Amino acid sequence: TRSYRIAVIPGDGIGKEVVPEGVRALRAAADAFGFGLDLVEYGFASAEYWTEHGRMLPEDWFDELSGHDALFLGAVGWPETVPDHVSLWGSLLQFRRRFDQYANVRPVRLMPGVTSPLAGRGPGDIDFYVVRENTEGEYSSIGGRIFEGTDREAVVQETVMTRTGVDRILRYAFELARTRDRRRLTSATKSNGISQTMPYWDERVARMAAEYPDVAVDQYHIDILTAHFVLNPDRFDVVVASNLFGDILSDLGPACAGTIGIAPSANINPERRHPSLFEPVHGSAPDIAGRGIANPIGQIWSASMMLDHLGEREAAAAVLRAIEDVLAGERAELTPDLGGKGGTASLGRTIAEAI
Amino acid sequence: TRSYRIAVIPGDGIGKEVVPEGVRALRAAADAFGFGLDLVEYGFASAEYWTEHGRMLPEDWFDELSGHDALFLGAVGWPETVPDHVSLWGSLLQFRRRFDQYANVRPVRLMPGVTSPLAGRGPGDIDFYVVRENTEGEYSSIGGRIFEGTDREAVVQETVMTRTGVDRILRYAFELARTRDRRRLTSATKSNGISQTMPYWDERVARMAAEYPDVAVDQYHIDILTAHFVLNPDRFDVVVASNLFGDILSDLGPACAGTIGIAPSANINPERRHPSLFEPVHGSAPDIAGRGIANPIGQIWSASMMLDHLGEREAAAAVLRAIEDVLAGERAELTPDLGGKGGTASLGRTIAEAI
Ligand SMILES: CC(C)[C@H](C(=O)O)[C@@H](O)C(=O)O
Ligand SMILES: CC(C)[C@H](C(=O)O)[C@@H](O)C(=O)O
Repeated sequence: TRSYRIAVIPGDGIGKEVVPEGVRALRAAADAFGFGLDLVEYGFASAEYWTEHGRMLPEDWFDELSGHDALFLGAVGWPETVPDHVSLWGSLLQFRRRFDQYANVRPVRLMPGVTSPLAGRGPGDIDFYVVRENTEGEYSSIGGRIFEGTDREAVVQETVMTRTGVDRILRYAFELARTRDRRRLTSATKSNGISQTMPYWDERVARMAAEYPDVAVDQYHIDILTAHFVLNPDRFDVVVASNLFGDILSDLGPACAGTIGIAPSANINPERRHPSLFEPVHGSAPDIAGRGIANPIGQIWSASMMLDHLGEREAAAAVLRAIEDVLAGERAELTPDLGGKGGTASLGRTIAEAI
Repeated sequence: TRSYRIAVIPGDGIGKEVVPEGVRALRAAADAFGFGLDLVEYGFASAEYWTEHGRMLPEDWFDELSGHDALFLGAVGWPETVPDHVSLWGSLLQFRRRFDQYANVRPVRLMPGVTSPLAGRGPGDIDFYVVRENTEGEYSSIGGRIFEGTDREAVVQETVMTRTGVDRILRYAFELARTRDRRRLTSATKSNGISQTMPYWDERVARMAAEYPDVAVDQYHIDILTAHFVLNPDRFDVVVASNLFGDILSDLGPACAGTIGIAPSANINPERRHPSLFEPVHGSAPDIAGRGIANPIGQIWSASMMLDHLGEREAAAAVLRAIEDVLAGERAELTPDLGGKGGTASLGRTIAEAI
């Protein structure tokens, strides 16, 4: 039978609590749909690993992880032990870059049973994707300080966009828009204030749009776009954005759809030259870590996206359906963030049974 | 009697429609509170000026405007005629930089009579300030293209932060927080992804916080911060942010408080070496320009902020009170964006009478 090699990387904080529930859902899906799973768990990309080794990843991480069909990640970040920019640049951001996972795909969907903070919005009213460029742009490691420690101190940081990088994410987003009923693509820009990179982004959007006459294209500056997420979330279908703007929109969107606690993400290498990575949108949440109350749905939904990517369409759909059914069911079974009384593991078990 | 020299710059689109209503409110306040106004209107910083002169401003704009006590601006931008980055870098962004208006102050307040898109939020639930760094950071003109027109094409854009620039905006925000009941300051960062500038920003916040033990300080990465604007807007008191992050938060905040159509802003040179500039948060809105339905309240509220800056405290308060009274009064008198049947001029007149 077909089988998949998955690297499981819990990371820090609630990552360690929700990943086992994601794994539980994966195993339930494997049993139900008759495929095999070869799961290898890794302890690196965590504060413990940092404390022991003074780095976030072993030297051979690239080769080690390359042998897998996909990476299943919890959350990285434990600022008490290691500054966030060190831990993230030393792990997650390396994965995205070195495995060229240039398409970060994040569904924004108001699910049954979830209350939106927006007045009068129900399931079906919010249903779109944020497609985020995931390897370049504002997240660069280039830059530094000058005149350190003096009054003249200054810091520079370089944003870099390449034609290759911009065009391939735009193409990915246009292709995704084509698969949707509304065939609508919204580009996030800020070309009125950011003088070099953003006008370039707009130019490439205009050029690509000419190749996709069947897709309706519009663009908003990022400031007013965030306003429209709140005022008119029904307007969006596929939103394409640079690394930073996509980061912002893919937290704001799920918040408008009720909670970022259940939002998933896929970091995809579309050419399948390297493994893709699946992780919830939420972080390691030091404030609630260790209490067994973290919501595992973001992790389980990420498992669904991973199965879809691996070609297990039916299993992916079953996992998503199980999430929807449980969300629409007994509120008491949900975790406290959704107004329930359940814990991470009990909610995870309920969903696994539903699969 | 005391009198103020004000440069009035309508700009483009609905700027031309709302500025006269702002002026009407100013004149009403001057009559009621016994001060003089010397208003000089300028046609530059507009698409018409661009078409005629091939530039946005006359050569002597700096000297010409320096003679004024304040600048009262509508909105700049008419992409049909001149690309936004050209028109804005050629006018508004020059004013902010050359007049060193480094503090962009934007109140976010849910007003009586205005419906928030957020469920269950009423007047008093949302009441904070966004203090935005207004001269450096992500809005730099430094950068350019390489390998133009080829597949290797790349664009770079430099973000620059200086100790002077960061410290002075932080100090401004801490001082503002001190005047408030809750004495709470929230810093917007993204130091987990943006490796040079944002960790520096965090360091300066930490250092400044030590000087203000009476102010409670927290910080959020910009992605989750936008989520909290929607989920927990009552949490904020004074939010301090870099140029780009402040731009985003000061559109998102007013959207959460119902509409950006009524939000004002002050671009302040705190040392009063140069004139400060007052303008609504909204733009020139080409889609509704020329129809006489634009909401003038953002402009009129900006007039109130300008009067406050000029030392006319009572007049400023009276203008704000008039806005609140009219918003809480007959809905039919408001503009269509607020569910009313009024036009720009009729609403402006109603507010002027209330002053
Ligand atoms: C028009 C644009 C350049 C400007 C900005 O981004 O600063 C506007 O959005 C604002 O917030 O004042
Ligand atoms: C943890 C952080 C570096 C990361 C990012 O900004 O990309 C996270 O916010 C995300 O959205 O995946």
